[in-house]
Amino acid sequence: MTYRMVDLIQKKRDSGEFSQAEIDWMIENYVKGIVPDYQMSALAMAIYFKGMTTVETAYLTMAMVHSGKEFDLTDISGIKVDKHSTGGVGDKVTLILAPLVASFGVPVAKMSGRGLGHTGGTLDKLESIPGFKFEKTEKEFIDQVKETGIAIIGQSDELVKADKLLYALRDVTATVDIIPLIASSVMSKKIAAGSDAILLDVTVGDGAFMKSVEDARLLAQTMVDLGKSIGRETVAVITNMSQPLGFAIGNRNEMTEAVHTLQGKAPKEFQEFIAELAQIMLQLAGLEKSIPEILEHFTNGLAYGKFVEMVKAQGGDPTAFDYLTAPLQVKYQVEIKADKSGFISEEKALGIGLLAMKLGAGRATKTDDIDFEAGVTLTKKVGDKVSAGEVIAQLYSNREIPDELVTEFNDSLVISDQQVHQKEILEIIR
Amino acid sequence: MTYRMVDLIQKKRDSGEFSQAEIDWMIENYVKGIVPDYQMSALAMAIYFKGMTTVETAYLTMAMVHSGKEFDLTDISGIKVDKHSTGGVGDKVTLILAPLVASFGVPVAKMSGRGLGHTGGTLDKLESIPGFKFEKTEKEFIDQVKETGIAIIGQSDELVKADKLLYALRDVTATVDIIPLIASSVMSKKIAAGSDAILLDVTVGDGAFMKSVEDARLLAQTMVDLGKSIGRETVAVITNMSQPLGFAIGNRNEMTEAVHTLQGKAPKEFQEFIAELAQIMLQLAGLEKSIPEILEHFTNGLAYGKFVEMVKAQGGDPTAFDYLTAPLQVKYQVEIKADKSGFISEEKALGIGLLAMKLGAGRATKTDDIDFEAGVTLTKKVGDKVSAGEVIAQLYSNREIPDELVTEFNDSLVISDQQVHQKEILEIIR
Repeated sequence: MTYRMVDLIQKKRDSGEFSQAEIDWMIENYVKGIVPDYQMSALAMAIYFKGMTTVETAYLTMAMVHSGKEFDLTDISGIKVDKHSTGGVGDKVTLILAPLVASFGVPVAKMSGRGLGHTGGTLDKLESIPGFKFEKTEKEFIDQVKETGIAIIGQSDELVKADKLLYALRDVTATVDIIPLIASSVMSKKIAAGSDAILLDVTVGDGAFMKSVEDARLLAQTMVDLGKSIGRETVAVITNMSQPLGFAIGNRNEMTEAVHTLQGKAPKEFQEFIAELAQIMLQLAGLEKSIPEILEHFTNGLAYGKFVEMVKAQGGDPTAFDYLTAPLQVKYQVEIKADKSGFISEEKALGIGLLAMKLGAGRATKTDDIDFEAGVTLTKKVGDKVSAGEVIAQLYSNREIPDELVTEFNDSLVISDQQVHQKEILEIIR
Repeated sequence: MTYRMVDLIQKKRDSGEFSQAEIDWMIENYVKGIVPDYQMSALAMAIYFKGMTTVETAYLTMAMVHSGKEFDLTDISGIKVDKHSTGGVGDKVTLILAPLVASFGVPVAKMSGRGLGHTGGTLDKLESIPGFKFEKTEKEFIDQVKETGIAIIGQSDELVKADKLLYALRDVTATVDIIPLIASSVMSKKIAAGSDAILLDVTVGDGAFMKSVEDARLLAQTMVDLGKSIGRETVAVITNMSQPLGFAIGNRNEMTEAVHTLQGKAPKEFQEFIAELAQIMLQLAGLEKSIPEILEHFTNGLAYGKFVEMVKAQGGDPTAFDYLTAPLQVKYQVEIKADKSGFISEEKALGIGLLAMKLGAGRATKTDDIDFEAGVTLTKKVGDKVSAGEVIAQLYSNREIPDELVTEFNDSLVISDQQVHQKEILEIIR
């Protein structure tokens, strides 16, 4: 069957619903370069206004999966559970969660990406470990998971070719924030990577892509429905990204916080948050564990032990382990102090994420270099009591830190008389 | 001032209104190739859903005018009135109206286009005159108008460069039927061609681009407002295109009908319709004439005389004039007869226009050749009484005429017991 792309654009523009054959044709010919960008961008804009049904989104997702290489993890026994976050500030969840889950014998075969703008990427954080390698062939990747139960590698360029083309196009045509297109982009990569079940961390708030709980819920529900309709059990957790996650922002800084958490040295609330996510991933793999049973792996050394195994298997320098918990190696350091007494009621993730980027911790454009040691450490978080003059945060950089950046931090901070409490997990959608 | 196109697309997508500087930047950089097609098509689709204000449409029109050559007709004294039709079946109005208006001493300096699909183009009809030439330099064009008071030439490729690019893009991205973009396309060409005032013939119905009177009225009002806002007096006439205009369809066939009309040999209703349009064009040029005064130019030879002057000035063979009213020179000819008695209540323009194209009178694609002699002659029109077996129409072609084409004609025809009347001019918008 062949189609004219102009007719398909008009069909969507006029509220039509695509068939599987139409979507397959469109994606196949887009990847081949037969359907040009100027038709695909007009279609994306029509989808912005007219949406797509769950059925259409499922067809699109599978057409995208088939547009590139598909990893076959069947050689690894057990249910492979993958995890994806829509991104945030200080989001080091994967670094902790992956070894924790693997320490229960559930295989974790994960592909991660790099960060851009104010959001960090798991790959960049792991790269702060001297010697750590992400590039593996499919066979090396599978062999490592079979031997150690865990591997985190960079996403293969061969995966979901349509997504790379589409994403670059959407980025320059104001068609990024379209829920069915976000959902199919995320889910196609997870499916092509070979996982059986998927935990989605949909972040919401100031520092996240989704600004409102309603939008986050819609995206989460779309992806959960999508996962189910294509036979991959999917659970979505909506997490709060109005303030940074945890206390550390910056690549090595977050790596250090992750190591401390794996060693059972993190604050109780943060450990429990990770344990709740782990509980869902274990359930998806068919394992029922209580929160206390999961937390025990932080204190009995099993979670950290699994992390060490992974770092060694991926070429991490054995001397790296001391370095991971050493103080940050920077030329410049500034303390932020409370200008009045009260309770911290806001500590905006977006502002602090952009500040960390300016300190050298992130990339403004895809080709920027990262300073692994740069970052921000919060000593107080939303809900904490502070006295005037008390240290709230530290800024670390190898560039001189101008006063404007201190002002930027203070612009992201609100101290009030009323104490507010923020939860990390807002909703779970199954 | 410089912009990012992605921000401008998002602005329109989110219901924003463009400034003149934004529109100028966008069109200038689109013509330069700096703004790529894939951004322009996404913007066009956003405009489909969000529209443009009259002010934005005026900015766009002028930005398009400035994207190419602008003809300067100030050397020609008097108010230059141009005329544009949105296209139809059997639309030979320009061929009659232009010499008629010129015969009152109002200068007519007109650029016309070719036809595509079921709608014919003025240029193709004139080309059926042996020796007739449309290619003129600006100076030759102006000199001819100064000497004879009339010239009809092909549209210069140098005019409104942005329109050529935009139109080709809209054609393949389902963004053709957007009123502010149609309006700016039409009006930019008229303005760049140098006219002072404009008569717009907005056709409506089965055989026209606008299918409903509401849409036609909206387009007409948009163009009239636009014309006024940029200082060109503009009047729009909404004309009925549910049946073909006049009796002849096909290039030389319409040329012959035009000549007969100019010689005062056409049915009274058709002559009056043309006279009403002429009255508006003359008013726009500052000349008040009654319908009888105008009709007189058909009978006293002045209108036809002006036409002969134009044909001679543009290289038309002097032996052409006999040929123009001779019978059509075709190998095949089929009579269509009424299968029952009654009144013709429908004679659909679209079906008859497509049929004429299949007989060889039109182009399915831009590069198709035209058979000037092929066409359809109606002997009965909507409202006429017919008896079973009476001839309703004749088909003319140099290709064999299969029975399917006769069936196609009959599918476009409805004979009923009730007599209906159709008007040619539905509304005048000033």
